[in-house]
Amino acid sequence: MKDRKLLMIPGPIEFTPEVMRAMGMPTTSHVAPNFIEVFGQALERLRQVFLCPSGQPFVVAGSGTLAMDIAAANLVEPGDKALVVSTGYFGDRFAAILERYGASVTQVHAPPLEDMEAALKRDTYKLMTVTHVDTSTAVGADVKGLAALGREHGTLVIVDGVCAVAGEEMRQEEWGIDLALTASQKAIGTPPGLALVVAGPRAMDAFRKRKTPVGNYYADWTLWLPIMEAYEARQPSYFGTPPVNLIWALNVSLGQILDEGMDVRFARHRRLSQAFKAAVAALGMQQVPVSPDKWATTLTAPYFPDGVDRTMLGTVKEAGVIVAGGLHPAIKPLYFRVGHMGVVSASDILATVGAIETGLAKAGHQFEPGVGLAAAQTVLTP
Amino acid sequence: MKDRKLLMIPGPIEFTPEVMRAMGMPTTSHVAPNFIEVFGQALERLRQVFLCPSGQPFVVAGSGTLAMDIAAANLVEPGDKALVVSTGYFGDRFAAILERYGASVTQVHAPPLEDMEAALKRDTYKLMTVTHVDTSTAVGADVKGLAALGREHGTLVIVDGVCAVAGEEMRQEEWGIDLALTASQKAIGTPPGLALVVAGPRAMDAFRKRKTPVGNYYADWTLWLPIMEAYEARQPSYFGTPPVNLIWALNVSLGQILDEGMDVRFARHRRLSQAFKAAVAALGMQQVPVSPDKWATTLTAPYFPDGVDRTMLGTVKEAGVIVAGGLHPAIKPLYFRVGHMGVVSASDILATVGAIETGLAKAGHQFEPGVGLAAAQTVLTP
Repeated sequence: MKDRKLLMIPGPIEFTPEVMRAMGMPTTSHVAPNFIEVFGQALERLRQVFLCPSGQPFVVAGSGTLAMDIAAANLVEPGDKALVVSTGYFGDRFAAILERYGASVTQVHAPPLEDMEAALKRDTYKLMTVTHVDTSTAVGADVKGLAALGREHGTLVIVDGVCAVAGEEMRQEEWGIDLALTASQKAIGTPPGLALVVAGPRAMDAFRKRKTPVGNYYADWTLWLPIMEAYEARQPSYFGTPPVNLIWALNVSLGQILDEGMDVRFARHRRLSQAFKAAVAALGMQQVPVSPDKWATTLTAPYFPDGVDRTMLGTVKEAGVIVAGGLHPAIKPLYFRVGHMGVVSASDILATVGAIETGLAKAGHQFEPGVGLAAAQTVLTP
Repeated sequence: MKDRKLLMIPGPIEFTPEVMRAMGMPTTSHVAPNFIEVFGQALERLRQVFLCPSGQPFVVAGSGTLAMDIAAANLVEPGDKALVVSTGYFGDRFAAILERYGASVTQVHAPPLEDMEAALKRDTYKLMTVTHVDTSTAVGADVKGLAALGREHGTLVIVDGVCAVAGEEMRQEEWGIDLALTASQKAIGTPPGLALVVAGPRAMDAFRKRKTPVGNYYADWTLWLPIMEAYEARQPSYFGTPPVNLIWALNVSLGQILDEGMDVRFARHRRLSQAFKAAVAALGMQQVPVSPDKWATTLTAPYFPDGVDRTMLGTVKEAGVIVAGGLHPAIKPLYFRVGHMGVVSASDILATVGAIETGLAKAGHQFEPGVGLAAAQTVLTP
């Protein structure tokens, strides 16, 4: 009897056995030749996973919030204007972080592209931020369209890809994204503890042309850039001790991601997401994002049906699957969140739908048993 | 045949099998009840290891430099005066960090206590920093004496205990230290990736009385304090995703530290350090710190003997032990560094002395084989 539950939250996600073995390997020195090789390789692979061949990767011990902080601290100077495209909790957070470094922030709430264009015309912004997938609401943004608009108006485009990179389709260089960031525990498939940033040439250029020092010491690229360059050149170097085991694990996971191939990986995520969302609809549940064009791929946020509340999640867990509660303050008790990214498989989707059916049935929701599973299976069947 | 070398650098150090098993355990949600319990327990145990019953612990994903950054960002307001007691590279770093947040910094270089008293009388400082063990030079500071002076003059006392906490004797509350910090990969015995800070009541009070916002978002206690309080109250909470596996590993290691007992642990570190330093002397090597009262307990920095250079370290490694090269820019090629902290044992000390003897002999240094081992053994024999 397995006591292990299937973890289907928006991160930490399920990690592969190979990744977990790297976590438990005896730690070496951060300047040991084998670690230098691994760190160098991980940096090279990050460029490939972000699809940004001319980008500069940064891997720093910290959470995804640190990755946002790194972007803001290095690119914002006091008085800079920033446009935040907000789709939930994490857009608001990015606004707060940008303001911390002196930015004058304008927030727009998930506008259609034409309204976004109007906003970009109204003023000149040094940078704009987009949350690719807002973990709190499962809203996915049209990053490709928004980035194209930003570039057109000479604005640096920053994508918070925390719940997206390596799951949602994102082609950083081709789409003109100047900086993309994520955290290790999402679709990247490594336990939490790493902030990951890839900065393109225009972002690095804006950093190099700063007139004021970076306001945050630990986030300062002045200190980290030589370290990243040294590891990639396979040279020993030191600023802060890198989290050796996490970086080993990251390199293993990035290797697995590239073995699958980015296009195949994006397609798998889309198919599994569609299957899960078909089940949600068949079970009579609405989703937090108002229309299908706003649905994230990596994540689904269903509202509880009438008469069902979050105590249902306990039954789902007893049935073997852990999903997450609501996060957005305005509607927190009304919905739940299911992450389906990284190593997620068709079997995981079916197990999750099955456990949710069990939870709904126990809560007294009326439906034909198996109707969710059948809807998912219809999408999954080639 | 073991391919694993003994790691005797100033961190990462050797970790116990139990700690490494926690690193490799399947990651759970950061709000899973069993993780909340472990995080809460780790916070309680940190207070005991720092010997600071009324302190507020902070555990954040990052390196030791982040812990320094957290101390500076939360306690410094622009224009505050700070006194940095510098004993090497890391004192200079603390000065740079404090200045980043607007402090006006005065540096004193490892002064005798009477000169320190004069410095504290010359001006009024909001805070002073002391590096307990400077990892670059193996200089240990008289933290107890310096802290007493600081308190006498109403100055907040901050101890950078990165290479010290849980190895060097430090009694945070009894000695009047207002904030102590370290990184996980040193004597705390957990792989790198965690910044650890314990702030006493006067430090928290200074933070609460700030007139300006904290300049660094990721380091801001305003955001982290409710999270630490929630985990300790065994309540789910979220700001940034905590590094689940590292915190499991930390809790295991803190448990092992407390099982040994702080007094027994301090005494073991002292005895093993004396044994290693006796061997260094018997082999005809001087140490970087000029006099024995400046020798750190957790770390030794011997100069290479005449005619021997750092290529010797390759032979030491072939003989099975990894030690570290010099770090302080002014004397980098002239010395090496050996860490002896955490789970280090008498056997490890003898293995290290043996490998160093092999290295010295191969480099042509003249000495009676075994003379280092005999000197160490004399100290180790009860």
